[in-house]
Amino acid sequence: MQEQQISAISKRLDEQIQKKIDLKTKPLGALGTLEKIAFKVCQIQETLEPKLNKPAILVCAGDHGITQEKVSPFPQEVTFQMVMNFLGGGAAINVFSRQNDIRLLVADTGVNFDFEPSGQLLDLKIRKGTRNFAIEPAMTIEECQTAINNGAQVIEKLHKEGTNIIGFGEMGIGNTTSATALMCKIGGFTAQEASGAGTGLDANGISHKASVIEKALQLHSAISNPIEILATFGGYEIATICGAILKAAELKMTILSDGFIATSALIVAHAINPNVTDYCLFAHESNEQGHKLMLQHLNAEPILHLGMRLGEGTGSAVAYPIIESAVNFMNEMSSFEDAGVSNV
Amino acid sequence: MQEQQISAISKRLDEQIQKKIDLKTKPLGALGTLEKIAFKVCQIQETLEPKLNKPAILVCAGDHGITQEKVSPFPQEVTFQMVMNFLGGGAAINVFSRQNDIRLLVADTGVNFDFEPSGQLLDLKIRKGTRNFAIEPAMTIEECQTAINNGAQVIEKLHKEGTNIIGFGEMGIGNTTSATALMCKIGGFTAQEASGAGTGLDANGISHKASVIEKALQLHSAISNPIEILATFGGYEIATICGAILKAAELKMTILSDGFIATSALIVAHAINPNVTDYCLFAHESNEQGHKLMLQHLNAEPILHLGMRLGEGTGSAVAYPIIESAVNFMNEMSSFEDAGVSNV
Repeated sequence: MQEQQISAISKRLDEQIQKKIDLKTKPLGALGTLEKIAFKVCQIQETLEPKLNKPAILVCAGDHGITQEKVSPFPQEVTFQMVMNFLGGGAAINVFSRQNDIRLLVADTGVNFDFEPSGQLLDLKIRKGTRNFAIEPAMTIEECQTAINNGAQVIEKLHKEGTNIIGFGEMGIGNTTSATALMCKIGGFTAQEASGAGTGLDANGISHKASVIEKALQLHSAISNPIEILATFGGYEIATICGAILKAAELKMTILSDGFIATSALIVAHAINPNVTDYCLFAHESNEQGHKLMLQHLNAEPILHLGMRLGEGTGSAVAYPIIESAVNFMNEMSSFEDAGVSNV
Repeated sequence: MQEQQISAISKRLDEQIQKKIDLKTKPLGALGTLEKIAFKVCQIQETLEPKLNKPAILVCAGDHGITQEKVSPFPQEVTFQMVMNFLGGGAAINVFSRQNDIRLLVADTGVNFDFEPSGQLLDLKIRKGTRNFAIEPAMTIEECQTAINNGAQVIEKLHKEGTNIIGFGEMGIGNTTSATALMCKIGGFTAQEASGAGTGLDANGISHKASVIEKALQLHSAISNPIEILATFGGYEIATICGAILKAAELKMTILSDGFIATSALIVAHAINPNVTDYCLFAHESNEQGHKLMLQHLNAEPILHLGMRLGEGTGSAVAYPIIESAVNFMNEMSSFEDAGVSNV
């Protein structure tokens, strides 16, 4: 595992980074969150001249046995239908990635459908959907490890191709149930406080979902190792993203953490190695009930508060220009001295 | 005046706009604020296929006689120095406008400096700075009307050239004091609750500023007409922006309302004709103390919460890609039917 391989972020240049920010032609601190983002990207890249190269978003799709418990209003086939929508370019993530020149990679990590082989779809399929974790672990430890390794391999390839900033998205009917169980088990939250509407449950639906999760947490109460927790409650898309995040942090890439499901993968990665969040920017606070709690658990400040709850990596794609603004002011804005402006 | 000429926004297409949003391949409401933005731009443009054409930001600079009361830690010459920085391309607003392909127009509306005539700088100068409103009205009614007309003329020209979305920025040492007085007089706020740090006052400085404003409000307590209020407490940049906003609303352009100073111009415009906010999107909530109160006064929901307080139109420039995302999903995203995705 990657435990030893993720270094804590370097603080070597902290003073110089802050000085460069403070000498820009603006009142101290006047660019707010943009200054914090610029600072972090400089830390990650260990430079005063950060660059965002070949941004990419990896969208992982997978199906979930837990849908047998009627935890989503949408039928399971929506997972493969939405993958087809991604490949056709018509989903929200396609629109926002095109707009912001972000390379979009779509992976089948465990969809209950036979896709035609295509250069467009990464085949990382483990199985046609997880098992129902209300009854048994969602996946075997070996399947979980394979998914983690698959995610790591995608990142290694992207890194070799020059990508230094990466976001993650997902599609999987039922996966808010999986993500909720993961955050409860790792973060110590109750199923009741963590369960939300997902794709659109009403109050009765949410209450049923919370009770399914509560019972599953009791059934699998003996486990404590993060990989075992991931295998028990996770999805193949979540495990793949988890592996990708760990590898991205190891390779000192800037990681855009997204919404509820993608953040659940980060919570597992963080339980494996807490240094991982040193490399993360938090794109947005999702409108999905438990996401605020997830962000608190990770001590994270989200960039956007747009009430989005779509997944697919859309929060990261929409937030990306803000990251660019942060990097651009750092590189392009004049200092007081350059511009001949009086400082106080 | 423009009072009669700004129509209330058309609600003719509301049902069709909402239906188009709801049939996109996403759970109902899952794009949050992006859906509200798309809805509003469709309303403004009276179309189901909104377009953002030739976005522009008009930055108006002016000096303020109120600086004689020591209300800013920065010296007055920073106003012209920053105008030179805008013209040199090194200010924050240059960086963000370049990034997002926004045309930047810089106007001298009343800077205490003789600029070389240049095609780059719009000469809308009324006078080399306002008078000190702690002693007398900042400008005459005629000067105020001229500034309003100047702003309107810039907008008419942009509109003829095809621009249909416009943001406003400003530069003027001392202008948070002017903006604070305007919001207090029109919105009924106290100087104490509305006064903030501006470019960087400490607690004593803020307290002094509030007392200067409080006394000025008493001195000029007899006035009540919005134009008279603008002439008494405003700046030439604020009056120019106010006129530009009124004309932009009349021409059914989408208006990006920015930070503390630009929003004070909107507050005056709104007092002249409340329909004006029908055409506004609120780019961000500034970190300047009184901006939250201004937004409440206008019943406005800001898009970004990045703790910025720089002015120059930077909030609008940084928020612009979010508006683009809203318009893009409306035009480019598949419906459930188009994509063959099952709906609930």
